[in-house]
Amino acid sequence: MVNYHLKYKKFINQKIKEIREIVGSESAISVLSGGVDSSAVTVLAHKALGNQLKTFFINNGLMREDEPKEIVDTFKKLRIKVKVIDAKEKFFRVLKGKIDPEEKRQAITDVFYEDVFKKIVKESKIKFLLQGTILTDIEETVAGIKRQHNVLAQIGISPEKEYGYQVIEPLIKLRKDDVRKVAKLLDLPGKIHQRIPFPGLALAARVIGEVTPKKIVIVRKATSIVEKELENSGAFQYFPALMNDRATGMRRNKREFGNIIIIRCVESKDARKAFPSRISWNTLDKLQRRITREIPEVTRVCYDITPKPPATIEYV
Amino acid sequence: MVNYHLKYKKFINQKIKEIREIVGSESAISVLSGGVDSSAVTVLAHKALGNQLKTFFINNGLMREDEPKEIVDTFKKLRIKVKVIDAKEKFFRVLKGKIDPEEKRQAITDVFYEDVFKKIVKESKIKFLLQGTILTDIEETVAGIKRQHNVLAQIGISPEKEYGYQVIEPLIKLRKDDVRKVAKLLDLPGKIHQRIPFPGLALAARVIGEVTPKKIVIVRKATSIVEKELENSGAFQYFPALMNDRATGMRRNKREFGNIIIIRCVESKDARKAFPSRISWNTLDKLQRRITREIPEVTRVCYDITPKPPATIEYV
Repeated sequence: MVNYHLKYKKFINQKIKEIREIVGSESAISVLSGGVDSSAVTVLAHKALGNQLKTFFINNGLMREDEPKEIVDTFKKLRIKVKVIDAKEKFFRVLKGKIDPEEKRQAITDVFYEDVFKKIVKESKIKFLLQGTILTDIEETVAGIKRQHNVLAQIGISPEKEYGYQVIEPLIKLRKDDVRKVAKLLDLPGKIHQRIPFPGLALAARVIGEVTPKKIVIVRKATSIVEKELENSGAFQYFPALMNDRATGMRRNKREFGNIIIIRCVESKDARKAFPSRISWNTLDKLQRRITREIPEVTRVCYDITPKPPATIEYV
Repeated sequence: MVNYHLKYKKFINQKIKEIREIVGSESAISVLSGGVDSSAVTVLAHKALGNQLKTFFINNGLMREDEPKEIVDTFKKLRIKVKVIDAKEKFFRVLKGKIDPEEKRQAITDVFYEDVFKKIVKESKIKFLLQGTILTDIEETVAGIKRQHNVLAQIGISPEKEYGYQVIEPLIKLRKDDVRKVAKLLDLPGKIHQRIPFPGLALAARVIGEVTPKKIVIVRKATSIVEKELENSGAFQYFPALMNDRATGMRRNKREFGNIIIIRCVESKDARKAFPSRISWNTLDKLQRRITREIPEVTRVCYDITPKPPATIEYV
């Protein structure tokens, strides 16, 4: 216990010092996603820079139930002010008609950096961006498994040249486990430092095919149910994905062509390998019952039984 | 036991008598699908009509592994000759580009009746068709849950006017359970009288989106695996469905966009209500392992956990 504290406290103090040295008397920004990585970076940077740091949260319309409000409240308790930027319409506009997951990812990346983010940077006149990139992000990007929108430098794009700012990534040598410990030591609440992973694409990553406001409403409701019912499961990650495919169902004795929700719940140490959780049939039954009752568009619920590899944890 | 035998033997004798009375000295045909309904009707009609009955099996390219051969062999043992019509190309041609399940169903119905079947009828110069329609087919058609291609009369189409023949449906008042008992008394082998239900659309009903020869190969392999691994489960019905949606996966450390197979396995008495079978996690794990190893196109396997209603047993 003493060693654990010492190791991570040392890390925190060192990073605070480094951030101060790099930023000097300039200003910096951090952008919260709501996850443990960007939250830890924000608290670290706030400790290093105080009022020289501005913190933003971009509401892209793809967040979970009440998420923007919860994030603001959480950081308020840490005396960190978060400015929420409403960019819902911009994100839905660029997602319209896009089916290919790489195109969707690119569209979100582009509108994030080249529109919303650029505007923040220009208006804030800052020179430094604090980012919550961690080791797994880089390993997976290099291996070609996924393209992370927060690892521009690693895929050969220079943010300094293209956007006029410099990226600081204090967590780049840590894995998720370490970040959780750092976040705890930074006094972030349990619902953040023990939060299950949630992708940068947010709920758009849980919609197969075109992402529309209507589909986001469906998958948001399903996410609330799945997170509530599995919060005590101890699993590494759990979420629903909304298929584009439909299948027959019947309600009030009439045939209908309904939506399909797939539930993913996995055991994993660091997301590199994962195994489907063997959750009880009673829990599975409750999940399907709540989802099909509370979301009338959904007539079918499935449970993903594939490990990673050969599947990935996420669907896109 | 005596009552059981008596009741169904009486039914069989009565139907044989009725078929003889209706057909007289004319000819009749039966078309096998491989299922228990059309098999029972064929044996009944053969007992009634002997050589006045001609029996066909249409290979539409949508059958399971080795199915055409197995059907011919089974009926050979009962001294009933089955003529196999190869219509694979015709079926794939009409299915090309069709995504909507009702359009696919219609295309299969149309090519079956208006092309392949019409040809058989014309060339055989018969006046009577023996069909394996059962009570559930009619109930579901009337309720609008599904459109059965073998209940033309019930949905207001007159086969006599439109195709020039008369339909005889000896099983029309029986449910699946009764048909199985009749089939057993007719000396059909266990693999037919205890056979799990398989839809008229065959493997086309297990492909979401466009049905192509390539997708049929995938779902046929998956069907072999699922039927083999679950044959001793005692479940009412079990099958895989191939989604049109794809999801990310990884093989040899590379990201790929793979196919999704959903496994459906249900407990039911007569298909009107159904509950997902609570099969063991070891079996589920074996299923996903065999499917992803033996079918490299598939990177994800899910298990359907929805009862009927609100889902149906089948996907289309």
